[in-house]
Amino acid sequence: MQNRQKNIQSAEIVTIGTEMLLGDLVDTNTAWISQRLAKLGVGVYRHTTVGDNSERIIGALREAASRSDLVVTTGGLGPTSDDLTNQCLATLTGREMVEYMEAREHVERKFAQFGRQPSPSNYKQALFPKGTELIPNPLGTAMGALVEWGETLFATLPGVPSEMKRMFEETLEPLLRSRSDGSIVSKTLHFAGLGESALAEKVQDFLDATDPTVAPLASQGKVRLRITTRAATEEEAQQKISPVEEEILARLGDFYFGEDDETLEGAVARLLKERGATLALAESCTGGLLAKRLTDLPGSSAFFKEGLVTYSNESKERWLGVPGELILEHGAVSEPVARAMAEGARRIAGADYGLSVTGIAGPDGGTQEKPVGLVFVGLSASGGAFAERLDLSAWARSRASIRERSANRAFDLLRLRLEGKET
Amino acid sequence: MQNRQKNIQSAEIVTIGTEMLLGDLVDTNTAWISQRLAKLGVGVYRHTTVGDNSERIIGALREAASRSDLVVTTGGLGPTSDDLTNQCLATLTGREMVEYMEAREHVERKFAQFGRQPSPSNYKQALFPKGTELIPNPLGTAMGALVEWGETLFATLPGVPSEMKRMFEETLEPLLRSRSDGSIVSKTLHFAGLGESALAEKVQDFLDATDPTVAPLASQGKVRLRITTRAATEEEAQQKISPVEEEILARLGDFYFGEDDETLEGAVARLLKERGATLALAESCTGGLLAKRLTDLPGSSAFFKEGLVTYSNESKERWLGVPGELILEHGAVSEPVARAMAEGARRIAGADYGLSVTGIAGPDGGTQEKPVGLVFVGLSASGGAFAERLDLSAWARSRASIRERSANRAFDLLRLRLEGKET
Repeated sequence: MQNRQKNIQSAEIVTIGTEMLLGDLVDTNTAWISQRLAKLGVGVYRHTTVGDNSERIIGALREAASRSDLVVTTGGLGPTSDDLTNQCLATLTGREMVEYMEAREHVERKFAQFGRQPSPSNYKQALFPKGTELIPNPLGTAMGALVEWGETLFATLPGVPSEMKRMFEETLEPLLRSRSDGSIVSKTLHFAGLGESALAEKVQDFLDATDPTVAPLASQGKVRLRITTRAATEEEAQQKISPVEEEILARLGDFYFGEDDETLEGAVARLLKERGATLALAESCTGGLLAKRLTDLPGSSAFFKEGLVTYSNESKERWLGVPGELILEHGAVSEPVARAMAEGARRIAGADYGLSVTGIAGPDGGTQEKPVGLVFVGLSASGGAFAERLDLSAWARSRASIRERSANRAFDLLRLRLEGKET
Repeated sequence: MQNRQKNIQSAEIVTIGTEMLLGDLVDTNTAWISQRLAKLGVGVYRHTTVGDNSERIIGALREAASRSDLVVTTGGLGPTSDDLTNQCLATLTGREMVEYMEAREHVERKFAQFGRQPSPSNYKQALFPKGTELIPNPLGTAMGALVEWGETLFATLPGVPSEMKRMFEETLEPLLRSRSDGSIVSKTLHFAGLGESALAEKVQDFLDATDPTVAPLASQGKVRLRITTRAATEEEAQQKISPVEEEILARLGDFYFGEDDETLEGAVARLLKERGATLALAESCTGGLLAKRLTDLPGSSAFFKEGLVTYSNESKERWLGVPGELILEHGAVSEPVARAMAEGARRIAGADYGLSVTGIAGPDGGTQEKPVGLVFVGLSASGGAFAERLDLSAWARSRASIRERSANRAFDLLRLRLEGKET
């Protein structure tokens, strides 16, 4: 392919599919590709979505090419008459569509794997603009196209996320690595237990700095800081990030729970496994959310023994041994009941730690005394049990927020305990 | 405002924010707005995302205006120097930025509600292009702008989803209703228990039709059909949809579980409430996912008694009374154990129905005999218990898919039973 050596510094992503314009599907591919391109040092300047319409697709591709070194498309590579991406790319670049034997054989091989015969329309997926370099698709029938046109490289990928990601990682990423100039490196640090503005106050000097940049993003009781810089090599970029990271952690260490893809439940899982400790759960208002998040993680059976979703008072008594009089006296949403739930789960499961949540997630069930958003989180360990009162009434309009924030605080209390920090 | 009577038929959505271009945030606002606009009969032809850069924002707004009657923006309305949307709109339309007393008072009122004083930068949110009609924001400090420019109406909305939605519904929707020409009406029908191609075979004639259009979308063991048409009035559109809907339901009725925003767990909840029946859960590989999905629903305590996440063999015996020899003989992932789990949950909780899941979600734990993706779903009711074997090995690469599909099948088995259909 000609021009192969041209550096790629700027990119746009064009999503093709009427279902996106109708709002039937949220496009998650574009964010994923954007993250990957940023890590490769390629700046993404625009995302565009157009429907399955030749004129509009060609227009969007032409505009994107006029501004960028790289145009990545997703969608429109299927076998139906609505799938127009490669045809539009051929029209734009003035090439004819030709059949690629390699792609034809690929379609036949994939169908054979499913024990089926391709229909005539399936062979459409073997047609590409003349001069295309094919992008292999190990998972599906739709191969992608790499096409150089003037100063721009086009890459067409399918809309199915699993196929798109695999093709990006196996073909596009190595190609871009060899053609990008320098590296953008980002590191994300995750914090819990303090609000965005409290965090910002402590690291305002870094937030104001321009290299590395430090950007905060808050979500459901957690805050993450993304440190980003650009340098000639990845190593050089890392060296610019390290001192910033160290200073931020020195100021905010107790609130820090992990980097990059880490989650709160992931941090808890890691710490439990390191210590060979086990956990049992007793959930009321979170209704299985903590258990679900822990068991989202592969290998959770190593530390997670069992969870009880005790949605009724009766089940709190029966399963967890919470005394009925305690519930009568204080109510199911109370500090003593949260503590007794955590203790009961730990004792009955024979686990090292018991974690509990009881609260009012709304929209109904609140009273003046105990409003929607009042939640107690309990933690039981060998040294004893305690519970913390959370006031989440500011999120009273969102049952989902109250549940997520309660789960996050519960995980963070356990995280702090496992790290030997004050709770 | 001049031109108020011009009909609005076409729209574009422009998302503003560098965090989107970095892939740090998935933009869900655009899909939401697109759905709303479709329902109002306004065709959406393009989505564009640009970063916090004046030149690029102005370019994107200009291009969108050249193609559309309406341009809706989200993001860039905050108080910081990165928030440029209204300033760019002023530059594009050749207006100066002026302070609106109503907006200034709004900012002060919102700060007073939080018990704080606005800083000087917060008053930036009171500045709008001259001639703006303000869009009230009941939830936050950032009001939006309605600006007419030539043949185009601009509406600027904040990026915070809750604020954006409220402002769209309270101000933009009524305005567009009065200015749109005809109605696009959509109805979505939800099915479970058959694959997309099996469903397509039964309704291929409708999928091929052009008015109403019928489009399928499959996800995790469910398929939805979206019936869409356009007519002068909403009523007329409904009349075109009804016969299509009736015929589709006549062919696929047993698989149908609800319309529009209905979910499988929502259908189960509705049916349980209608029958005054209660449910207990016993989950192994889904690890709380069923409980979590049921308790996502407000008011779930009316029918949901309790759930047990029995992740270890020991907890299956202790909590659910599953005989140890049954596990020894058949293994924890087996038809008899799934049945015993459902029976145990129902019996011990004193519920009308018991639902259980046990399986191998992977990535580890599979064997030749019991591969990743082997799942058993059990259902216990007063008439007895049974379990169904699911082969989800085709999704062996995705723990999340195996869990979602298992939960969906479990809910659907209970749904069929509650509707008195064959399972």
